[in-house]
Formats: sequence, C-alpha cells, structure tokens
Amino acid sequence: MINSSSRCRDVVLLSAGPGDLELLTIKAVKALATAQVLLLDDLANPQIVELAPQARVIRVGKRGGCRSTPQDFICRLMRRYALQGVQVVRVKGGDALLFGRAGEEIAFLRAAGVGVQVINGVSAAFAAAAALEVSLTHRAHCHGITFVTAHTHDHGGPNWGALAASGTTLGIYMGLRRADAVASALLAHLPATTPAAIVQAATRAEQQRRLTTLGELGRTAATLPPDLPTLLLVGGAMAEANAACDDSLGLLLQQAVG
Amino acid sequence: MINSSSRCRDVVLLSAGPGDLELLTIKAVKALATAQVLLLDDLANPQIVELAPQARVIRVGKRGGCRSTPQDFICRLMRRYALQGVQVVRVKGGDALLFGRAGEEIAFLRAAGVGVQVINGVSAAFAAAAALEVSLTHRAHCHGITFVTAHTHDHGGPNWGALAASGTTLGIYMGLRRADAVASALLAHLPATTPAAIVQAATRAEQQRRLTTLGELGRTAATLPPDLPTLLLVGGAMAEANAACDDSLGLLLQQAVG
Repeated sequence: MINSSSRCRDVVLLSAGPGDLELLTIKAVKALATAQVLLLDDLANPQIVELAPQARVIRVGKRGGCRSTPQDFICRLMRRYALQGVQVVRVKGGDALLFGRAGEEIAFLRAAGVGVQVINGVSAAFAAAAALEVSLTHRAHCHGITFVTAHTHDHGGPNWGALAASGTTLGIYMGLRRADAVASALLAHLPATTPAAIVQAATRAEQQRRLTTLGELGRTAATLPPDLPTLLLVGGAMAEANAACDDSLGLLLQQAVG
Repeated sequence: MINSSSRCRDVVLLSAGPGDLELLTIKAVKALATAQVLLLDDLANPQIVELAPQARVIRVGKRGGCRSTPQDFICRLMRRYALQGVQVVRVKGGDALLFGRAGEEIAFLRAAGVGVQVINGVSAAFAAAAALEVSLTHRAHCHGITFVTAHTHDHGGPNWGALAASGTTLGIYMGLRRADAVASALLAHLPATTPAAIVQAATRAEQQRRLTTLGELGRTAATLPPDLPTLLLVGGAMAEANAACDDSLGLLLQQAVG
C-alpha cells in the first residue's frame, strides 16, 4: 500500500495569460490536459476549462475585494488534493508570479511539504502594450518599467514620488476606480502632458483602449466600463503608441456620421 | 497585376520567451509555422528555427554591445520583405516589448506604412522567479516590481535612489558585469542584508541560480559564468525564494564529499 506522503504530487501554478487562449504556452496546455482538479481564478478566461476535460473545476475567484473564497480555504484545498496524489492545477490570470498572491500559496504548500511547479505566462501589461503597438520601454523615453497596483488597503499606497522620479514607465494594475487618485498623486511630480494610456480586457472581445495624458487620465477612466480588468500606463514611452489603436476614434466617427 | 503596396504584409514581432520552447505560446507556434523569413535575435533559443520549416533564417544578433548587425539594416530588411508580401517573423528573446528595441522597429515600420502584429511571451524575470519558486511581488514585502537594465551607455543609468525608495522588487536585466556597480549604488539606499538573487539562462540547461544579499551581490556575481544572460533580483520578496533552489548547494556538497 502506498501511503499518502509518497503519493504527494506537486501543485502546478499555471498562468492563464490575459484572456486569449492562444496566448497560453505549450507547457500550460499540456498541464491542463492532465489536470484532475482545476482551481480557477476569476481573472482567467473561463473557457480555459475546455482544455482540461478530465478536471473537476472549482471556481475560487475573489474579484475586486469581495472575497467569496478565503485564501486559506484555497490553500487547504490544494494541500488536501496534492497529498492524496491528485494532480492539482491552480490557474491564475496573467502571470501567476505578479500580484496573484502566489507568494502566500507557495509558502503554505512548501510548509506542508508540497512541491510547486510554476508555468509562466503573459502578464496583462505586455498584452496591453501589444494592443497599443508600443514597447513598454523605449531608450529615448525611459530606463525601464514599474508594475504596481492602485490598491492601498494592504499596507499603504506606493511611493508615487519615487516612482515618478525613477524614470520608468508606470504600469498600474487594477487601476480604473482609483485612476483619478493615482493621477493626482503623480501630478505632484510629473507634467500633466505626460503620455498615458488605458487598456481594459486586453486580447478579449470587450477590449477597450484609450490614449490620453496624465492630466486627463481620471476623466478618461470615468468614461470606461467599471468592471473590466484595467491597466493604466503612464510615461513618455506611451507617446509611441499607435494613435489608430484608440477605440474612442470609432465612437467619434460614428457620432460625426450619425 | 498586384502592386507591391497592396501585397504588403504585417511583420510579426514574436516573443521567444526565456529559452524553453515549451514556453512559446500557441499563437507563436502558429506564426512560426507560416513564417517565410525569420529574423533571429541571438537571445532566442536557436532551436526555434525547427518550428519554422518554410522560413529562410537570418541571424541578426548583436550580443553584448558588439553590434554585428546594425539596427537600421534589420529595419530595412523587414520593410523590404514586408512590402514584397513576404511573411516576416522577427523573433526576440523574452517578451518583445521589454528592452528589445521593438520601439524603434515598430516606429520604422509604421513610418513605412507596414503594419506590425505583436505576439507576447514570457519575459526572463518571470522565468527567473519561477526557477526560484518565488513571486516577483509579495504583499508583505513590496508594492510591485521594477525592471531596468544595468546598461548606462544610452543616456545615463537609472535613478537608483528613487528605485530603492519605490518599495518595489528590482529586476535588473543584463546585470552580471555591472553587478558590483549596481550593488554599490543601491547600498547607498538599502541595507546590505536586503535579499537578492541571480538567475542566469532561466529554463535552459545552463541555468544557474544563486540566493544572496545586496551586500554580497557583486561577490556572488563574480563566481558565475560571464556570458550567460543574467537577471539580478533585489528586494524583500526574494526572502521567500526556495533555499533549495540555490545551485551552489550542489557544488558545496560535492566539495564536502570529494
């Protein structure tokens, strides 16, 4: 008889990317095909379950601060299945190692003696840049890119002054509802003409793209659907975005014709 | 007769990821299968050509500052083929939209009336974090992540003081040879005990991982192969890396036994 500790299987922490299932990696597709239990974040494209035909699917989303599934419950569920030798695939939107609480989950599993295998993916900011046909970094404009969240409830907000002084493009995740506050904080350090962009639901049918400026960022954000995952991009590099990628142009044309 | 402008095809800017070909996206694999000309960066895994059996392969690397293929030549080559209606796939290591001069190439092609389609991928820092079984961000340690390069020849180095004050994990690309200088700059603002890591050639057979501190970063870097693509990671979040992921442990054990 095999005891449960010798049967213990690594949990796969799988990055679902921004939405388009063609942006899954080969490695992710293979892992999904053999998954027996799928723990699904609500930022991931729900159609991903079609790639995991053998899996029992458990939805464990906690969208926008409304914590329907407590983190501890998710961790204990993963541990229980892994110790039983069940192939658990934990699916997170974007890349699992950016803003996904993967740190807490890995620490919990490690303490329980359960191994973790991470499968990387495409984080939303990269897909947003692709949608704008722009590079996140550009030698003429910046030294790099910083990703932060606009949330402040964890342990205070980011140091916006330092971020502005860093000379990097800023990619602000989960930024729509706090776009006005973020812009105000940055306007203390950066000119109102600083190029900015908003991309919602990159690669999905609902995708929305706006090119704007830091001074207009709050106003632009207020015109957009409030419930789509949203990335704010701020910095000189955004001046290189393709002007034709602003989806409000179509709306303006419709209004002009109609 | 079809004139060349009506035949013009979009150039595909394809992200090859960190090396492991299983980290290519489905979309990338499909684009490679139909590529007629492949312009290959030397940071990409050369075996990627096997996925593009129809393509004429042109190697256009400019590794480590030795500019074997001038940027302008690459741009003109892409334009010429695209205007002829040839399917050009420009392959870049990691994600094409981070530190890859994609900005210059997109601007050149846009000015020539040639469209660009970007296919995202996994950037090296994400693969490095996966190799260390650690999240790039962790609510208990940081507000986000900043990616910069250690290069200074473009327009001065990054503002290390601002980066240190930003409260983000720092991911420094192309950092090996300047690890000592980068560490010195950061030590003016951060304690020597700040957790740090070095990952070389993530996901490849030559992969090397070291867990260290900011105070020891230069010394640790000096023990590593000088020619592998290298990422430095600095910040409290690195304290959560799996200690067993340090490849020097195997060396120490060998020495102890031998």
